[in-house]
Amino acid sequence: MEAQYSDRADIILQRADILAAISDDATCISRIFGTKAFVKSLALIESWMQKAGMQTKVDQVGNVRGRLLSTHAAAKTLVVGSHFDTVNNAGKYDGILGVLIAIDLVEQLVENKIELPFNIEVVAFSDEEGVRFHTTYLGSKVLTGTLNKDWLGFTDDAGLTIAQVIEQIGGNCDQLQTDAIPKEEWLGYFEVHIEQGPVLWREQIPVAVVSSIAGQQRLEFTFYGEAGHAGTVPMNMRLDALTCAAECIVFIESYAKSTKSEVLATVGKLHIENAATNVIPGKVAFSLDIRSGNEGLLKKAVEEIHKSLSEIAGKRYIKIETRTLMEMAPVHCDSQLTLGLAEAIQECNCPLISLTSGAGHDAVAISQVAPVSMLFVRCFEGISHNPLENVEVEDVAFAIKVADRFLREKVSRV
Amino acid sequence: MEAQYSDRADIILQRADILAAISDDATCISRIFGTKAFVKSLALIESWMQKAGMQTKVDQVGNVRGRLLSTHAAAKTLVVGSHFDTVNNAGKYDGILGVLIAIDLVEQLVENKIELPFNIEVVAFSDEEGVRFHTTYLGSKVLTGTLNKDWLGFTDDAGLTIAQVIEQIGGNCDQLQTDAIPKEEWLGYFEVHIEQGPVLWREQIPVAVVSSIAGQQRLEFTFYGEAGHAGTVPMNMRLDALTCAAECIVFIESYAKSTKSEVLATVGKLHIENAATNVIPGKVAFSLDIRSGNEGLLKKAVEEIHKSLSEIAGKRYIKIETRTLMEMAPVHCDSQLTLGLAEAIQECNCPLISLTSGAGHDAVAISQVAPVSMLFVRCFEGISHNPLENVEVEDVAFAIKVADRFLREKVSRV
Repeated sequence: MEAQYSDRADIILQRADILAAISDDATCISRIFGTKAFVKSLALIESWMQKAGMQTKVDQVGNVRGRLLSTHAAAKTLVVGSHFDTVNNAGKYDGILGVLIAIDLVEQLVENKIELPFNIEVVAFSDEEGVRFHTTYLGSKVLTGTLNKDWLGFTDDAGLTIAQVIEQIGGNCDQLQTDAIPKEEWLGYFEVHIEQGPVLWREQIPVAVVSSIAGQQRLEFTFYGEAGHAGTVPMNMRLDALTCAAECIVFIESYAKSTKSEVLATVGKLHIENAATNVIPGKVAFSLDIRSGNEGLLKKAVEEIHKSLSEIAGKRYIKIETRTLMEMAPVHCDSQLTLGLAEAIQECNCPLISLTSGAGHDAVAISQVAPVSMLFVRCFEGISHNPLENVEVEDVAFAIKVADRFLREKVSRV
Repeated sequence: MEAQYSDRADIILQRADILAAISDDATCISRIFGTKAFVKSLALIESWMQKAGMQTKVDQVGNVRGRLLSTHAAAKTLVVGSHFDTVNNAGKYDGILGVLIAIDLVEQLVENKIELPFNIEVVAFSDEEGVRFHTTYLGSKVLTGTLNKDWLGFTDDAGLTIAQVIEQIGGNCDQLQTDAIPKEEWLGYFEVHIEQGPVLWREQIPVAVVSSIAGQQRLEFTFYGEAGHAGTVPMNMRLDALTCAAECIVFIESYAKSTKSEVLATVGKLHIENAATNVIPGKVAFSLDIRSGNEGLLKKAVEEIHKSLSEIAGKRYIKIETRTLMEMAPVHCDSQLTLGLAEAIQECNCPLISLTSGAGHDAVAISQVAPVSMLFVRCFEGISHNPLENVEVEDVAFAIKVADRFLREKVSRV
């Protein structure tokens, strides 16, 4: 890797270390929307934006925003960014890596006096993880003017509302709408993010283009059998809710495998009612998280799973109930932007692979108003939301090399 | 059914109702070793024994004992009984039905001036369920002189020891050994008990002879995979501890089914560590309760399950750990006594079926010193340890008709 990129990557990782030390919890990384560590981080990020030569502001919802305006007539705006909030006990790079890279990209444009035919607005989103209010994309919903005002009344565990927290950090809820970038001004959105999955790690490739962000459904299946004494009910007289659930779990896995991971299906929680070693389970519930970048495949998978689970349960005389807890359609990255990104990757002599993002990102909210694009960076063993989260400096260097090329040579073609 | 048996059965069921009303908990049936309800019940049972014409005593551990001596030279003793303690939120018949039938059988002998060539000792055992101290067969271990003295130091949830509770109910721990019936004086043991399983209910047969009491092992299997993000790890890169466990549960069930219920296997508890809807389970543990009346089959089943689970886990690169938490060999009912009981059933024009008792009984402890035999009575839908536990008066009548014949015509042949 050329030294210039490695040097820039070094600074980016140093900044990630500095931010990691600003935490709500002295024993781990935790930077939750509206907390002291959040406010302290926000000020630091804003100072880095200013140092890079941007006009900055912190908007009502705590998004840190830095602009580099183009002198071109009728220039639209490319938003480049990611989020700076974290989960509890987080790693150093989820979100913040994309923020720091975005700042670096602009800094290089300014230093090299490169003017692009579009405005760039770097945004460090204030709340993507939704840890505090169990919301999603609070920051990017304000930026896009799509926030449901009812959300302002949502409360955290301490009983504080989102509105109160916005006021605590200096925001004004009545002015939220003024923070939105009008739809007609958007050129598009670009985000760099760690993969949070193991594909790049296993394939030994530094970056990948994101084709889509998976659609998702969360379901709950409940199986009603008949509890009984483990020692007295013959096997053929049992209505065992757990063995039925187990057969269903095995089916779900084999179905998802048969799609070659175009559908991901996960049973993450399972509860046996009145569980005891010597009692045949009478009632069992499990959760299903099912995702796909392909809306048709997701729909088909949910239908097939419903059908097959009903058949499995029916054969066992077990009653089955299903609840859909969450349903979100896939988001497709913009084909033009993504093609440009793919070209940039290939021109940097990297094998091109395209991934569906299984995790959600601010791009989901932004896709409602503008074309979106994302670049994934390899992370250690695919581990994320965990203190073990790690990225290699060479991979960051490669990502900024690709991003430089994308910004300077590809975006303006769109 | 002849009126004499129905009338006797009526009284037995009335007495069961009276005892059910003596409970430690006003909202349900609960008669736990050493409690107020226990002491009150004990006195009532002793009074019924006296009314039936027996010499009675309450021994050190709270067993209620009534004797009907034979004038025959060198008469040995047949113990007839069951337990009068209950689980929490119990039914009316588990245990106590056998006690009440035993009292009735002696009462009839006395009323009809029938003398048998052996002594009968009716015993209402004080603690079979082991709810308070997590022990088994406390009462029958004292009767047989097989109690491990270390147990006296076991404590209940309130910190009271077994020794203290024995003293509270008027017993003397130093005299426990004097309560044992010497091995050479035993003729055998006979117990009537509800089936606690659904076979007689489904087969529409009132009673069955018990061939053996199942041996049992309790195991715990722990599966170590790798936790991961439900949205980012492709299906073929997962080390999902739950899907592995599910495949194992399905195998265990199919194995037990293939033995035609000669082996019963139940997974009653399952725990996912750090379970979350959107997290691939990294560590899962489940319990296995496995029973059989055939020691060889039980041993083979445990071996086969170990082997197959290791194979299933091995193929998935999941690490598996096993712990044996409990191991108990099967107890065979005495062939002579059981043959006599089978004859009595057939002579009463009932189809003969023989069952393995999946649940444990005082006969397990007694089998160490004397030949044992048991008669199962059909219960409603096989439900037990539950307020819905129920027996039909006609079935009780039939059970006492069989027991009368067994006592009067069969036992003395042994």
